[in-house]
Amino acid sequence: MTLRMPPPDEEVIARRQEIARAMRRIVPGDGVIDDADGLRVYETDGLTAYRQPPLLAVLPETREQVAQILAWCHANQVKVVPRGSGTSLSGGALPLADGVLLGLARMNKVLAVDYDDRVAVVQPGVTNLAVTDAVSERGFYYAPDPSSQIACSIGGNVAENSGGVHCLKYGLTANNVLGAELVLIDGTILRLGGRHLDPGGLDLLGVVLGSEGLLGVVTEVTVRILPRPETARALLIGFGSAEAAGACVAAVIGAGIIPAGMEMMDRAAVHAAEAFVGAGYPLDAEALLIVELDGVAAECEHLAARVSTIALQTGAQSLRISESEEERLRFWAGRKAAFPAVGRLAPDYYCMDGSIPRRRLPEVLARMAEMSRRYSLDVANVFHAGDGNLHPLILYDANQPGQLERAEAFGADILRLCVEVGGALTGEHGVGVEKRDLMPVMFSGTDLAHQQRVKCAFDPDLLLNPGKMFPVLHRCAELGRMHVHRGRVPFPDLPRF
Amino acid sequence: MTLRMPPPDEEVIARRQEIARAMRRIVPGDGVIDDADGLRVYETDGLTAYRQPPLLAVLPETREQVAQILAWCHANQVKVVPRGSGTSLSGGALPLADGVLLGLARMNKVLAVDYDDRVAVVQPGVTNLAVTDAVSERGFYYAPDPSSQIACSIGGNVAENSGGVHCLKYGLTANNVLGAELVLIDGTILRLGGRHLDPGGLDLLGVVLGSEGLLGVVTEVTVRILPRPETARALLIGFGSAEAAGACVAAVIGAGIIPAGMEMMDRAAVHAAEAFVGAGYPLDAEALLIVELDGVAAECEHLAARVSTIALQTGAQSLRISESEEERLRFWAGRKAAFPAVGRLAPDYYCMDGSIPRRRLPEVLARMAEMSRRYSLDVANVFHAGDGNLHPLILYDANQPGQLERAEAFGADILRLCVEVGGALTGEHGVGVEKRDLMPVMFSGTDLAHQQRVKCAFDPDLLLNPGKMFPVLHRCAELGRMHVHRGRVPFPDLPRF
Repeated sequence: MTLRMPPPDEEVIARRQEIARAMRRIVPGDGVIDDADGLRVYETDGLTAYRQPPLLAVLPETREQVAQILAWCHANQVKVVPRGSGTSLSGGALPLADGVLLGLARMNKVLAVDYDDRVAVVQPGVTNLAVTDAVSERGFYYAPDPSSQIACSIGGNVAENSGGVHCLKYGLTANNVLGAELVLIDGTILRLGGRHLDPGGLDLLGVVLGSEGLLGVVTEVTVRILPRPETARALLIGFGSAEAAGACVAAVIGAGIIPAGMEMMDRAAVHAAEAFVGAGYPLDAEALLIVELDGVAAECEHLAARVSTIALQTGAQSLRISESEEERLRFWAGRKAAFPAVGRLAPDYYCMDGSIPRRRLPEVLARMAEMSRRYSLDVANVFHAGDGNLHPLILYDANQPGQLERAEAFGADILRLCVEVGGALTGEHGVGVEKRDLMPVMFSGTDLAHQQRVKCAFDPDLLLNPGKMFPVLHRCAELGRMHVHRGRVPFPDLPRF
Repeated sequence: MTLRMPPPDEEVIARRQEIARAMRRIVPGDGVIDDADGLRVYETDGLTAYRQPPLLAVLPETREQVAQILAWCHANQVKVVPRGSGTSLSGGALPLADGVLLGLARMNKVLAVDYDDRVAVVQPGVTNLAVTDAVSERGFYYAPDPSSQIACSIGGNVAENSGGVHCLKYGLTANNVLGAELVLIDGTILRLGGRHLDPGGLDLLGVVLGSEGLLGVVTEVTVRILPRPETARALLIGFGSAEAAGACVAAVIGAGIIPAGMEMMDRAAVHAAEAFVGAGYPLDAEALLIVELDGVAAECEHLAARVSTIALQTGAQSLRISESEEERLRFWAGRKAAFPAVGRLAPDYYCMDGSIPRRRLPEVLARMAEMSRRYSLDVANVFHAGDGNLHPLILYDANQPGQLERAEAFGADILRLCVEVGGALTGEHGVGVEKRDLMPVMFSGTDLAHQQRVKCAFDPDLLLNPGKMFPVLHRCAELGRMHVHRGRVPFPDLPRF
């Protein structure tokens, strides 16, 4: 929904001017934006149903500037929303009307590459793909590959613990980041992790990864780089039902094979993608699997044969193996264009993100089809099938009264279903504003309160990205009281002493 | 050093009796130990230079008992030291004279195995190897393999983020644990993580992994299980110098090969191991590499040939490839027995644990040799060379006055050297009491204070395993004041506003 911006009153203008003056002392040149047109650029991120221009935007170029900005905001109790490239699909970078938007896009340098230690040290505004570009001449790459990788920034990837089609084998951002520099809200600069196994002490990096900008601002990231696999081959496998495709996925994983990626598309997504890019997809399939195998050529060939056997045993109707790099890329072209392709089927679509245990897939698909009828909205399904991460695309028309609200209700029902079958509210897109109010479906009040205690250890005044992730923000002092309450017996069936 | 136990005075006896009565109301049967002989069992862990019997030991069998024990201790402000199997090499489970020792050894059930999701759910007292035993009939295993795996517990592995010879390819404990149940000091039970990619919310599991029992007590762990690789082959490669062996390690990694394990032993370790188990090691080598490759047979063969080529290019004097499973195990037998084998060279040895960037290995070895002369103590070196994790074994005789102190000073110098060259104080053994006072070498006061703020969010009264990890324990209220101090400019070269 669009949050209407009331015309700024005198007080807001004065506040904006005061903050702008302070920020211009820190960031010289054109790095402070306080005009309405300039601010509109930042009013939304990838979750475009929500819009809100910030009070002010500031674009620092150094970590010292970031530290000074945060220290000033802390001293003056101004809220701060950090932003990378603004591609979040959960509204993680949605601005606040009374907050500063801290854009990291100008901190976009690759600071160092160390091939001996196999790491790259980059600033947060470097795009995901630019990390790979910086190391590709030596045959290396950065593994996590969100669909937005041409645009999304490493800082944003750290905030959202982003994934991609290859995270089945290579892990999410959290598995590929070794260290970070974090600026706290009071301007303190911390070094977290490093290039090592386990540097000792409490692993604050672990809790910062995926913390959606609520704990601090990352100003440097050390990522693991990997050698590009010698070869890769993709299999395109058509099935007559989602059940059969799901059984194939389970059998491949159960056989101990971890493909580089294993993607599923349903009939609606296959038809949309085929019409859009002509990838050669089988139009009679109810469910299509793309299975990619990578490694040395001998291994790829061996595994492709094993996956083929399993696919035929589990009822594949059609099966093709890429015979050239060109063909492999064509197989992927449809999947990579699936979102815009589906976008052509209706004026708007809403991309969901949830996780389920792999074996519950057919049941979840059946129940989604039933919901689709109940809400009278079509849905196309694209998943990272190997790791049970669903991306249902709900089709709607925002110009038809009530459709956005229906789409949102449908989406919430899908996420509740994910939790009900033993899955999770998110896969790789984060909570943001989108799923904030569903957090109690996944977490108990105790879980949420304890997560907030950790938030309070980083940001006791709750100035960093408030309104994201937590449905209720407790004041930190309240949480402290809850916690130190003596002799509390925390669950009912305990005998008292 | 041995901490002498003074004869218990009346007050201690009364306190022990009071706690024992309360504990017996929670844990029936023989699960509460308060006699001197029974407590002596717990007086030390794998770091035997430190000894201290606890005030009392309690051995719960259910999570509800754990929660009740902690809630009682919290209400009565009694310190608690959690313990798995007591194999910590950093004194992580060293008891406190005025604290309860909470032993998890009786919580030793494998609760569930799910081959579809490829996870096992186990209680904390299950040994590392028992997880593999529980899933081996279906061809699966649990990857992290500390040398103590026959005895060490999963709970202890979580506390210390344990590694092993295969963590180069398969990661540390943190990379293989998906979820945990954590009981806080006030008895609150939290579920952390799950079986999913990224369940949303703050990733408290990330900071709990490796937290050495300072944040809570883990009562259930969900671990990833992997299919046993189809085949494995080991290469035994002798070099005329550590420089040449180090160059080979760097070249293998630089070529994009990630062996399952890549271990180095120096001349002293090779001779000790060969004399002990007759593994067939080349006695003329100054440095020996064991490189293991696993996967499908075709891949192993291909990679073994590439590693051989690289080894010969970097100056290998001898090279053998295992031709059978029996031979592969014999190659490993010497490495696996290296610690006890070196133990035969002197009455005592002190096993260090630090990390360095791989390329600094020859320099670090040369400087350790120099230190060895200066301290007049021999050292044998065994490393996880692939990930730069050193395990120097310092030989000494505790019965010779001053030798233990010299060994400890030598060890501290080695760890300072690790940090100096860009490495870390620990690799996989944790900080415990052993490295606690060296933490300021690795971390700034700001880093340590912030780690403690997070500790305070879990355990504000500092009752859980105090004396481990942090050289100075600030009271939580002090840290709070530091943090909310308004307008503080946290580093000196910032202009004030």
